[in-house]
Parts: sequence; C-alpha cells; structure tokens
Amino acid sequence: MFYHDSKLQYKVKVDKPNPAFANMLQQAIGGIEGEIRVCLQYLFQAWGQRGPVKYRDMLMETGTEEIAHIEMLATAVALNLEGAPVSMQEEMAKDKVVGAVMGGMNPRHVLSSGMAAMAMDSNGVPFNGSWVVGTGNLAADMYANVMAESSGRLLATRLWEATDDAGMKDMLAFLIARDTMHQNQWLAVLEELGGLNGVHPIPNSFPQTMENHDFNYAFVSTKVNDMEGTAEEMLKSRWGSGKSMDGKGEFKVVTGAPQGTKPELGAPHPQAHAQKEQMTGGKGLSGIVDAAKKAL
Amino acid sequence: MFYHDSKLQYKVKVDKPNPAFANMLQQAIGGIEGEIRVCLQYLFQAWGQRGPVKYRDMLMETGTEEIAHIEMLATAVALNLEGAPVSMQEEMAKDKVVGAVMGGMNPRHVLSSGMAAMAMDSNGVPFNGSWVVGTGNLAADMYANVMAESSGRLLATRLWEATDDAGMKDMLAFLIARDTMHQNQWLAVLEELGGLNGVHPIPNSFPQTMENHDFNYAFVSTKVNDMEGTAEEMLKSRWGSGKSMDGKGEFKVVTGAPQGTKPELGAPHPQAHAQKEQMTGGKGLSGIVDAAKKAL
Amino acid sequence: MFYHDSKLQYKVKVDKPNPAFANMLQQAIGGIEGEIRVCLQYLFQAWGQRGPVKYRDMLMETGTEEIAHIEMLATAVALNLEGAPVSMQEEMAKDKVVGAVMGGMNPRHVLSSGMAAMAMDSNGVPFNGSWVVGTGNLAADMYANVMAESSGRLLATRLWEATDDAGMKDMLAFLIARDTMHQNQWLAVLEELGGLNGVHPIPNSFPQTMENHDFNYAFVSTKVNDMEGTAEEMLKSRWGSGKSMDGKGEFKVVTGAPQGTKPELGAPHPQAHAQKEQMTGGKGLSGIVDAAKKAL
Amino acid sequence: MFYHDSKLQYKVKVDKPNPAFANMLQQAIGGIEGEIRVCLQYLFQAWGQRGPVKYRDMLMETGTEEIAHIEMLATAVALNLEGAPVSMQEEMAKDKVVGAVMGGMNPRHVLSSGMAAMAMDSNGVPFNGSWVVGTGNLAADMYANVMAESSGRLLATRLWEATDDAGMKDMLAFLIARDTMHQNQWLAVLEELGGLNGVHPIPNSFPQTMENHDFNYAFVSTKVNDMEGTAEEMLKSRWGSGKSMDGKGEFKVVTGAPQGTKPELGAPHPQAHAQKEQMTGGKGLSGIVDAAKKAL
Amino acid sequence: MFYHDSKLQYKVKVDKPNPAFANMLQQAIGGIEGEIRVCLQYLFQAWGQRGPVKYRDMLMETGTEEIAHIEMLATAVALNLEGAPVSMQEEMAKDKVVGAVMGGMNPRHVLSSGMAAMAMDSNGVPFNGSWVVGTGNLAADMYANVMAESSGRLLATRLWEATDDAGMKDMLAFLIARDTMHQNQWLAVLEELGGLNGVHPIPNSFPQTMENHDFNYAFVSTKVNDMEGTAEEMLKSRWGSGKSMDGKGEFKVVTGAPQGTKPELGAPHPQAHAQKEQMTGGKGLSGIVDAAKKAL
Amino acid sequence: MFYHDSKLQYKVKVDKPNPAFANMLQQAIGGIEGEIRVCLQYLFQAWGQRGPVKYRDMLMETGTEEIAHIEMLATAVALNLEGAPVSMQEEMAKDKVVGAVMGGMNPRHVLSSGMAAMAMDSNGVPFNGSWVVGTGNLAADMYANVMAESSGRLLATRLWEATDDAGMKDMLAFLIARDTMHQNQWLAVLEELGGLNGVHPIPNSFPQTMENHDFNYAFVSTKVNDMEGTAEEMLKSRWGSGKSMDGKGEFKVVTGAPQGTKPELGAPHPQAHAQKEQMTGGKGLSGIVDAAKKAL
Repeated sequence: MFYHDSKLQYKVKVDKPNPAFANMLQQAIGGIEGEIRVCLQYLFQAWGQRGPVKYRDMLMETGTEEIAHIEMLATAVALNLEGAPVSMQEEMAKDKVVGAVMGGMNPRHVLSSGMAAMAMDSNGVPFNGSWVVGTGNLAADMYANVMAESSGRLLATRLWEATDDAGMKDMLAFLIARDTMHQNQWLAVLEELGGLNGVHPIPNSFPQTMENHDFNYAFVSTKVNDMEGTAEEMLKSRWGSGKSMDGKGEFKVVTGAPQGTKPELGAPHPQAHAQKEQMTGGKGLSGIVDAAKKAL
Repeated sequence: MFYHDSKLQYKVKVDKPNPAFANMLQQAIGGIEGEIRVCLQYLFQAWGQRGPVKYRDMLMETGTEEIAHIEMLATAVALNLEGAPVSMQEEMAKDKVVGAVMGGMNPRHVLSSGMAAMAMDSNGVPFNGSWVVGTGNLAADMYANVMAESSGRLLATRLWEATDDAGMKDMLAFLIARDTMHQNQWLAVLEELGGLNGVHPIPNSFPQTMENHDFNYAFVSTKVNDMEGTAEEMLKSRWGSGKSMDGKGEFKVVTGAPQGTKPELGAPHPQAHAQKEQMTGGKGLSGIVDAAKKAL
Repeated sequence: MFYHDSKLQYKVKVDKPNPAFANMLQQAIGGIEGEIRVCLQYLFQAWGQRGPVKYRDMLMETGTEEIAHIEMLATAVALNLEGAPVSMQEEMAKDKVVGAVMGGMNPRHVLSSGMAAMAMDSNGVPFNGSWVVGTGNLAADMYANVMAESSGRLLATRLWEATDDAGMKDMLAFLIARDTMHQNQWLAVLEELGGLNGVHPIPNSFPQTMENHDFNYAFVSTKVNDMEGTAEEMLKSRWGSGKSMDGKGEFKVVTGAPQGTKPELGAPHPQAHAQKEQMTGGKGLSGIVDAAKKAL
Repeated sequence: MFYHDSKLQYKVKVDKPNPAFANMLQQAIGGIEGEIRVCLQYLFQAWGQRGPVKYRDMLMETGTEEIAHIEMLATAVALNLEGAPVSMQEEMAKDKVVGAVMGGMNPRHVLSSGMAAMAMDSNGVPFNGSWVVGTGNLAADMYANVMAESSGRLLATRLWEATDDAGMKDMLAFLIARDTMHQNQWLAVLEELGGLNGVHPIPNSFPQTMENHDFNYAFVSTKVNDMEGTAEEMLKSRWGSGKSMDGKGEFKVVTGAPQGTKPELGAPHPQAHAQKEQMTGGKGLSGIVDAAKKAL
Repeated sequence: MFYHDSKLQYKVKVDKPNPAFANMLQQAIGGIEGEIRVCLQYLFQAWGQRGPVKYRDMLMETGTEEIAHIEMLATAVALNLEGAPVSMQEEMAKDKVVGAVMGGMNPRHVLSSGMAAMAMDSNGVPFNGSWVVGTGNLAADMYANVMAESSGRLLATRLWEATDDAGMKDMLAFLIARDTMHQNQWLAVLEELGGLNGVHPIPNSFPQTMENHDFNYAFVSTKVNDMEGTAEEMLKSRWGSGKSMDGKGEFKVVTGAPQGTKPELGAPHPQAHAQKEQMTGGKGLSGIVDAAKKAL
Repeated sequence: MFYHDSKLQYKVKVDKPNPAFANMLQQAIGGIEGEIRVCLQYLFQAWGQRGPVKYRDMLMETGTEEIAHIEMLATAVALNLEGAPVSMQEEMAKDKVVGAVMGGMNPRHVLSSGMAAMAMDSNGVPFNGSWVVGTGNLAADMYANVMAESSGRLLATRLWEATDDAGMKDMLAFLIARDTMHQNQWLAVLEELGGLNGVHPIPNSFPQTMENHDFNYAFVSTKVNDMEGTAEEMLKSRWGSGKSMDGKGEFKVVTGAPQGTKPELGAPHPQAHAQKEQMTGGKGLSGIVDAAKKAL
C-alpha cells in the first residue's frame, strides 16, 4: 500500500508564469513520454512480476517515485497558469504578447480545469492506457523502460531549452538527473540478466531451433534497384556481415526474393453478403462449404 | 516511392481454419506489439532522419519489409476465417465447438469485414498512431525499436504456442526469425553510436554539467519501512553501488527525504468561477491580480 | 512525495483461479468506474486545489489510498490467471469448461501481458485520461467524486455477485466498504460547502442575475403530443412545481415553443471549396467578404 | 421516435465573428462537459430505464431538449467562423490580430469542415462514447447527471466570461439557466428516492451486512508522518467523526496499517515465454502445473 | 429544436432473449457503421450547410429519423439482455449453452450498464466523434452518406442472418428498407448536383487548370515486375484507357518511374538534442541557422 | 511483398519553411482524410478481397502508391520545420511573427519528434485504425474509396489555398491530380459492377423481397409542423416522387406516424443492483425470472 508526504520530492518554483509553457509541460505529464506512463508502467510491471523478487521490489520503489514526479509537474503547470488570461475579448487579442499566449496556451486549462494540470498531453490528447507496457518478460520490460527514460530525458531537455525561467530550469535539471539514473538502472538489470549474449533474442526461453534458420540473421534488402544485384552499402555495415550482436549467428544480406506465392482466398461466405458479382472466382462455393464443414 | 510484388515474402498456409485464432492474430497486425506499428515507426523514423544517411537507408529498407509482414498476417486472418459461423442461432450455440468458436472469435470479423483482417488488435481496439515513436534522437529511436522487436517476438512465440496448425507454426517461425534479426540490427546501431558509454545518458548532446549532480546516479528508495534506516537490499544490488552502466558516475542509494516544500497555489481566478467558498486562502485576490499583471 | 509498503492494504486470496473473472476484474482497474480513474482524479484535484487547504489534504490522502486498491485488484487479476490456458488448440476447445473459459478470458492476458493485469477495462479498451475530472470548482468535483464512488460501488457489488470464490468475495466486501465511506466523505464536503441551498446552482460564484430568468427553473416539455396542451404528468411531479431544490426558484413546466428563428448561414467561403452549386444562397458573396473584413 | 422544428430553441446571434471563440465553443459541443454527452446520456438512460416509468419519461424529454442545445452551439460555431482566414500566407501572419486568431482557431475548422462545427472538443479531440454514463441504477445515474450539469454550467459561465459579444452572452445566459434547472431536476429525483439517508450507500439494494464493517465508515489516513500518531486534522473534520451522511454509521479515522501481506505470484507459465532467469522463484513449476489442473 | 413521441418508429419485439446477439446489435448502435454515426453526421451536415436551403432541410429530417433508429436498437439490446446470466460461477460455466452465452456476451452489459445498451460497438470500443463526417462540400458529404448507408445496410443484413428470432428479423427488415431508401436519397442529390460529369472531380470549384496534367487521369502502376514493361491487365481495364468517368479526361497507364529525387533534410536543430553523432551530415549547421533566420 | 526506391514519387521543395503550415500538412498525413488512411484502406481491402482477382490487383497497386504520398508529405513537414523556434522564451514571444508561428505550430513537433512528421492530424490527434474501412462488399468499399478521395482532394485544395510557397503549391497540384484520378478509378469499378441499377441497394445479394416494402422507397418526414398535413417541399423534390435512383421502386413521402408502441422493459435483474425503488414496475420479478429461464 502507499503513503504520501505533503512536501514535494524537489522544489517547484515559477518566477514568471507562462501559460504557453504550462501547455508544453503537459507533454511530460500525460504524453507518451510522460510521467503517468512510466509511473503506471513500473507499478504494473511490479504487480505482475513473476520470478526473482528483487526486481519486483525495485520496480515498486521507482514506480512510487514517479508519482512524485507527476505531482511536481502538476504543481508547475498550476503555477504557470496563475494570472493567465481567460478571455478572447478583442482588446486583448490586439496585445501582441497576449495574442501569442492565447495561441500557445491550451483553452481547456481555462475552460475545463480552471487553471490546473490535466491528464493529457500538450495537444490535449488524453493519457492512454495502451502506453503502459508490461509483457511478463523481464528483459522486454527493461527495454521498454530504457526507451521510456530515453524519450523522457529527451523531452525534459527540450523543455529545459524552451524556458528561461530559473525555477523551471532547476526543476527540469532535477528531472533530467533522475532520467539519467533510471536509464542506468534498467541497463543494470539487463547486465544482470546476461547482457546482449544472455538476453537476446528476447524471449530467450523459446528454443531457437524452432525459428527459421535462413532468415534469423539476415538483413533483407528491399531496395528496388538492388534486386538483381547486391546491396553493397548494407553488406559493409555492422549489421550486414560479421558476428551478430547476441553472438549466436553471422549477419548476412539477402535481397528480397519472395518465398511465398500469390495468396488465393476462397469465395465470399454467402451470408456475409458481398456483391453478387464477387461470388465467383477463388475456390468457388463448394470450397467455402467444405471449409465451413472442416471448421465446425 | 514504393512497389509491390504479388507474391508474399513467405508462404502462408492454413490447414484448418480457426476463427478464434484469427482473432489472436489481429494482435500481431493492429496491436501495440504488431506490424503496423513497426512498419510506420521505421518509415517515419526514416522520413524524419537527420544526420548520417546510412541509418535513413536502413530504416527505409526494414520499414518496407514490415509492410510484407502485415500482408502475410492479413492473409492468415482471412484464411483462418474461411467457413467461420456467421450466426448466433440457437441450434449452433448448442454445439460445443461452435460455442467455443463463437466465444473466441471477433464478432466484427463477421459484421464489419466479412471475414477479413482489420486494423485493430485482438480486443477490437483500433490501431493507434500514438504508438509510432520517432523522437529525432537516433539512440532513443533504436531503443524504441529493440523494445518493439522484443515484445513483437514475444507475441509471435505466444501465438506459436497457441496453435497446432502446421502452416501457421511455419509462418510464425519465419516471423520469429525476422524479429531475432531485427533485435540484432538495432543493437548494432547502438554499438556503432558508441555502446553504453558513448550513447548514455540519452540524449548525449545535453551537457551533463547542467543536470542535478546529487541525484543523477542515485537510487531513490521509497520504501516506507526504510525511511529512517538504510535500504540494504538495494545497496547490494548492481544499481545501488559501483560504477554506473554508462561509466560516468557511481551508483548510490538515497532514502526519500523530500527536498521540496508543501506547494502553495494562488487563489482561484475570479472569472474561472470556483465556488465562493474557495476564494479565500492561498495568496489571496491581490496575489492573483499581481500575477496576472506580471503574466501580461 | 510518495512511499510504499510491500504489504497490501487488505488481503487478496484466490481459491480457484478463473481467467474469465480476471477479465471482469479489469473493469475495476482500467474502466471508467475503476480505480485508476478515481486515483488520478483525487490526486489531480488535490494538485490543482486552490482555496482552503484542508480539502487538498483530504483529497491527497484518499487519492493515495486508491493506488493501493489498483494494487489489490492487479494482484487479484494475476492470481486468477495462474494456470490459464494459453492455447486455442483443437482438443482443448472440445472441453466445455475450457471452451467457456477461452470465450470469457481476454486474449491479451496471454498474448500481451503474460498473465498479468493491464491498464484497460474488461473489453480491452485502454484507460483514458479524459475520465479524470478536476474542474477547479470544489462542489462540481465533489459531485464527480460521489458519482465515481457510486458507479464504483455498483461495479464492485456486481463483481461480488459474479463470483463464488470466497477470497474474492472477501476482497470485494472490503472494497465495497471503502466505497461506502468515500460516498459519505464527499457528501460531507458538500454539506460543509452549504448543502443544496448553499452549493447550487454550481458554480455559485456566477451572479444568478445574469442568467435567463424565464428558463432557470422551468421543466421544458418536448413531448410531441403535449405541444399545444399541458404536460400533466410533469406538472404534478417534484420537478414540475413547488420550491426548487436549491431554494432559489419555483419549478414550472413550459412546453417547447421555440424562442429562436430558423438559422441562416452565409455563403461558403470561396477558398474553402464547396461545390459551385452551393455558392449561391444565404447572404451571398458580398456578405461573406464583409464578414471577413469585420473579423480581421 | 423524434421530430424537429426548423426554429431554434433560443435565438443565436453573433455580432462579430471570432474563430478563436468558435474553437472554445467546441468544448460545449463535443467535450466531456458538452451537450452531445448529456444528450446521449439522458437518452441512453431513458432507453435502458427499468422500474417506475415516470423517470424514463422525464429523461426522454430532457434528452430531447439537449439535441436542441447541440444545434444552437453548432449554429454559433458556424456563425463565428464566417469570414475566418483560410491561409497561413506570410503577409497575414504579420498582422497581429490575424496572428492571434490563427493561433487560437482550430485548423480543422478550415481544413476538415469548411467553417462548420464538428463533433470534437476545443483541442480537436473527438467526442468519445465512453463518457455516456448509464449504470442501470437510477441514483448513480442522477449523480452522474448532477455532475454533468455542474461541469456544464461551469463551462458555460467560463465561455460567458471569455466573450464580449452581446449575442453570444445572451445565448450563454440561456444555456446557463437551463443548467440551473437541470441541476435542480436531478436533485429532485434524488429527494424522491429517499434523500441521503434513503439513497446511500449506492446501490441501496446490496445488503450492507455483507460489506466489511471495520472500514465502511472509516477515513483511512495515508499521511506518512501520522503513521504512528493520530491524524488530528482529519479527526476534527466532518468526515472524521460524528454521524455519517447516510445516517447509517459513525465516522472514524484509521491510520493506514496494512491488513494484507506481501503478494506472492506463481512462476511464469512456461509457454508464455518469460526470460529463463524468471522461471525460478515463487511457487515453482509444480505449483503452476497444479494451478493449471485446478483451473481446468 | 426537437420533440419526441413515446412510441417507437417501428415495433421492437424479442421472442427469445439472447445476450450474445445483444452484443452484436451494439455494432449497429455505436460502431462506425452504426446509427449514432449517421444521426450525428446528417445533423452536423445540416447545421453547417451553406448554400441552397432544401438540402439542409432534408438532412435535418433524416438526421432526426436516425435518432429513432438508435432508440429502436437500444430497446432491442435491453430486451435481448433480459434474464442474461450475471455470474461466472463454476456450475454455470459447465452448462454448454451458458458457456457459449458467457463467451459471446459483453461483460460490460452486466458490469457497467446493468443490462442496457451502451454507446459502443460490439467489441466494446466507444463511439468516436471522428467518424462524423461533414466537409462543407455537399457532394463529398453525399458520398460519405452513401457509403455510410451501404456499410449500414450490409451490417443490418448480416445481423438478419445471425438471428432466427422472428421479432428481430422483422425489425431488421424495416431498418434494411430504410437504408435502401437512404442510399437512393443521397444518390438523388448527386444527380441534382450534375451527375458524374457535373460533380467530379470533387470539389468542382477548384480550377482543374491548376492541377498537374500529367497525372490527373493516369493509373500509376506500382507492380515491381512491370516496371520496365507495360501493365497489360490494367491497360485493358475500364480505368486504364478510354474516357474518364467524369468525362473530362482520357485514362492512361503510367509505370511508376519516380519524378522526385532522394530527399535531403538539414542537420538536427542543436537545441532539439539529437545524439551528437547525428549532428554532421545533410546541410550542416550553417544551413540550419540560415533556415532558422529565414523562418523568423 | 514490397520494395522501395530512394527517390520520391514527385519532387518536394520548400522555399520558405513555415512551422504552422507543417502542422496543417499533418491533416493530410494522419487525419481521417489523410494518406495513412487511404493507404491502409486500399491495402486491407486488397488483402481481404474475395472474388474477381483484378480488383485485388488494382487495389494493391494504388495502395502501394499511397505509401509514396505519405512519404512526400512527411518530407514536406520536415522541411517546413527546418529552423522552427524551439523556445517559449519571453523575448521571442514579443516578436509578432514568432508569436503567430508559436501559436500555429504544434508543440509536439519540437517536444516529441524533434522537427519531423508524426502519425497524427493537425490537432495532434493520433491516426486511428477505425478509419480503415474494408467491408468485404466491393461496392460498399468503392463508395468508401470515392468518399475518401473526395474529402482528400478537398483537403488538398484547402492546403493549396493556405500557402503561397511555390514548392508546396506544386507538390499539392500533383496530389490534387492523383485524387482526381482515384475518384475516377473507383467510379469505374462501380460502372463495371452494374452502375446505379446493378449495384444498389448495396448489398445486392440480399433478396429485396425480405425487406419491408412499405418503407424501402419512402422519404420519412419528421418535421413537426407537417405531421398532420403534407410535406410539400419534399414531395416535389427528386427524392420525394418519381423513379428511385436504383430503378427498383417509386419514391414517396410518408409523415412520421410511429408504427411501434411505447417500449416496456422488464424489472431490473436483482443481482445487477438497481436501487430498491426501481424493483417494482415493468413485468415484475416473476417476468424476469421467466425470461432468465427461457434464456438459459
């Protein structure tokens, strides 16, 4: 279960409120690179973690920390909205700064939340639970987490560049630091799980003997000009020849000669009401009836 | 620009149509782990790629290959739906196999597509463009891609386990092999970009001197029992002490003593119409007016 | 900031795993009536709360409790999925219980999460941030919260009826009790804010003198048969006559005679490319040009 | 069935078109606080209403009225877009008013609808059917409706503040008045259903004897500082002691000592392909096999 | 404004409730082919209609009729859910019919609506406002409407096939008839607007002299095998040669020789924080600085 | 399977980057009228095509062409973003052009993609797979395609009007030409399928003898004033009398006298926990029990 402390994890100070920057901060709250996503992602991964307990514990600790980051950012949004204009009245639109502010701020910060943060991104698109990735495979999850912290730190540095407010820059410098740590933290688990050679291909519990051996270490070239010739540039690249990164194969380049045939579907199911003109062709009606019998 | 060949990249054969398995295959088409996502992700990354051209070229080649995977899976769905029941009529529900099939199949495969694949996952949730990640930072993108191919290969192995149809198992063994390659391929780029030490923290173009140095290599413990004591288990872990994975810091453990204060927001904006009872408290009305003046 | 304790707020025990019930529990996690919604709703309301501090404190405490409820339910889902079938293989479909299970379980619990809870509802629709309501008006928020706890308790009682697992019934009896408390808690704030008479109409800070006085306490009948006559049934009802609930008006019944005229729009903007045949009618081209000049 | 009259329910007049205000009005059409939501909500509640017929009738009448409100607002959007700029051409961007307008207006009002209202909110997020709440429990529905009319009236007053167009202010004063009535109307039903004491806890048809009696009237404090001590502030509050609002219990305060244990999940299912390193721990493989046997 | 009559537009009778069929009917309510979509589509088109008034009037009349269709289907869902099982209890799952029903029914019909229709499709995906198409161009709208009524009638015939309930078949025969009329109705407008020759290309108000004349009546072949040769099959087809359908051009076939060059993007913006390794290449830093100066 | 050529289908040149226009172009990429939609729509229709093979081949060729259009537009977005401002810093907001740009550009082009195109529309709403229509009925699909190319060409002409950049106007003139062709192409299929008389009502494989013959060619008037009288305007219109467009019926006008009765639902299911006050009314408890018995 969970507890809270009224104090913030790190100080949040806004020297000069800027409602357009408030909107940009929403990306770090409710966007796909944002804190609601990592918070729920780490917690759901922890709650569903099967296997060694220490990973569950660590995920839980960091998932809990992320709630505090949402809190900091939500506070920063509210402070940036203090004194924001609430009106589209003409005389205001004539003022150039107000005009810029009106254009850059989110109308729902006035209309829907009354000058407070919301669970959405900087386009007003609501947070979406599909972004919360927990696969049941620890290595896949760790890559999801490194990726989340990479795009998250990238976002935070861009927000840092977008403001000249000293308080905001200080808060972002803290969040950037946390993302540095979290990138390292998930990479540490990947090392413990065996590094590139031990971890890949993910999942490592599926017997590689069962996968297709003609294509598991082949770069497939789909460049139309190279179809009869060779793909020189790719051949010379790290992924075109030499030992594979997981140490379990040799890279090669294959040009895209199709292995399959042109697909052939049966006739439309009579009760699914295609046009009458579609009813002929393919395997014909007797084929579909046979298939139906087989299926049942 | 793009071209197509009527032949499939690899053969798709269904020995015994199974509409419930058709629904499961939808996850690999329109789900977050699916092929529409990786296809668009690699193509959008290629189209927006700035910097060395060879990465753009490679992304384009593999993005183009992924269209062929959507095609294979869409064909597999159509073939698994041949002969599927189109009716909820009572006598059919009494048959136990039909009953199971009816439960497991997707009603929209009958009602909406007339026995064909759709751009949705195995819950019928439509493909969502927010899953297409391209950050403008090559290393962040490569992690997004390793993650996509890890959850993608995981999904394919689970589908492989879920069927005993020899044709389907063969097609999935091909797709599993491609995911093996693609995991390796994106990892090869990360090696070229400098490996853990060169790549991290992502983005490596933001000067680390600007981030908060008290917290950039610290595991923050949020366990309530350890607040006054030490976090023993974490201290002994790979991420609790020793050299950081990027080689640029020393891991340490910090218990969660908050660095900030309790946040204090201004009074509600009069025209945003909070309840009258909320109007007192915080900085008061004169504060909000001052803030408004500052902001404008 | 936030902390966690490894122990659950209340015990979660599953005597007999049932993957179809696991799917039903998802509604209480990621559905609109679920715990992610109330958790984020109370926390966002707290983070944006302006005015008396005690409401902010209370919202924070209960928002924090709700994280523990997500945790309990996520644990319950994982336990209900232990031993669930991962295959659509034919011989399994023939078993009637397996068949029912396969129909009722969520395929993504196998394919995507590997037998763990996800941030979605029982149809697999992802949690959506738009459900997190925080208006900046405390009374409106309290009604949003009473409503959330009412539909939440209703859901919990329906889940209680749907299972005969003693452990699950015990856990749900706890959650039902919490919803009882939370309904009462938000109602207590409404009493403090002035009860029906003090609180309504929400927002009470907008001067009622500015609203239209012919229609602010009138039931508008839109029944086609009553248009010339009277709406007898409604006249006799609590909302058709007598003192209004907020004590500020007298209910009356008005039949729906329109107060407006048929609307008349200008001609299409030439550069917005309607069909040529639409270009005549309305105010004509000169009207649109005049309007454009006025707007700029 | 339904009929329409070409005349509007109330007059809609725009003195000076403002495309940025047109965008703000979209929130009242397709936003979560908007008229499509209440229209469909009341109609769906009516269509599914079981029990006393008079509530069905009333819901139908008011649901029908709300279609007329969408109509008024859609007309207002179209009128505010008359003469709006359709171009991003440079010379226009140099004009400060045009610049502000271009920033605040919705590009899809030009690109997609050709200067007409759309079924979306003021961020361009489409109306979402999940917002249409009908629970099958009349009291829960009434709270959903009070909440909808509270946030709806709040939105309308904010729109009223945002404009200085006399026609728009008049139209909004009408809509504000209707929301006053509708708040009162739904509250009247709650009184008829028994008031706080009769209605709560919702649903009142679940026997309270079955809920957990240690926690059904307890405020659970989750403040980390108070864990060993008492939660003084909450104890003194209306929800910390005294008779509960439903008159069926006594409020008390409980500090958050967890009642459960640390959760323990089984090992990963072998065919769900976690990493090999996860396979040990928890109940082990024999446990999962036993659970599987039990489940089938 | 709008009115309603308590009587349904057509009778709705369910002889034998079937909760799985109730779920299928949801597609006709809240699906992309469903009645909420056409209802809102016709009404929004009417409300935004500029030009000749008679089209506005007709759209309004039919939009109003569609509300009655939602009503009929919502009633049909409620009646099909009467007596549906509310439990996943084990003894029920053993019954084969109950098992099938449990698999095919929507859990939210029990959990969320208490046996009533909801604003979602047969996968539980909520109705989405983006489906409501109104372009401001009457001809484009008419095609959107023909398309909606075509997929709508198709859906209704599939539902007709899926049931053997006489009452349901009768209701669907009515709805199928209405879709027949509505297809004809929108086609009649297209004839009035000038038929194929007068209407196309849509919009007909854009001067065709401005479009690219090498490609406006050319079928572009993208078949990889035909790239150097000719596309024989397409040449012989109706769209490969001869007069175009709009009578304004001659069809021809062009093989896909690209007209453009390989795109070349500038270097990454320094403050957007790509990896350092991306900073070289493309136009280089001076190029980006120049471009920035130009843009501002 | 698929191939690509590094060269674009048509040249993309931006003379003067404009980040606000970059945002507008997003509508043509990820909007409902955009190229991702038509690309996936034609490909999915091809992959699921049953019946004559030539339609499958043609859909595949044009679906493949559309990938090249996404590519062109994504390139155009990246070029329009070169040199865009990345900051909300105060001194920049004071510049009027920058202010306008900041208002009109999409913050996620800076924050999320680092100056590149994304899979979303010009409001930042992600592409949605539900827009990909493939019905299994060729004629319905062709109308979906005509509609897509009509709204697509309309969008392209509006973008053409919105810019004065010669390179962009040239690119759009090419895309407008392609839409002209594609409108004609799908119309050609409809002619081949039999024209209005042969194709309608769609689906033409459902026996029209089974539809309701009183309403299949009747315009239903829902105008409240005409209910007892006649609907004169509609009677005189093309859809009010005379031969129907499909040549299979005679148009007539019917005023909206309801054919059904007031619906009567059963009492609430006891275990679905409506309020107690709802339990009486309707068919009563014995009715619901009888219905339940019948259903099982």
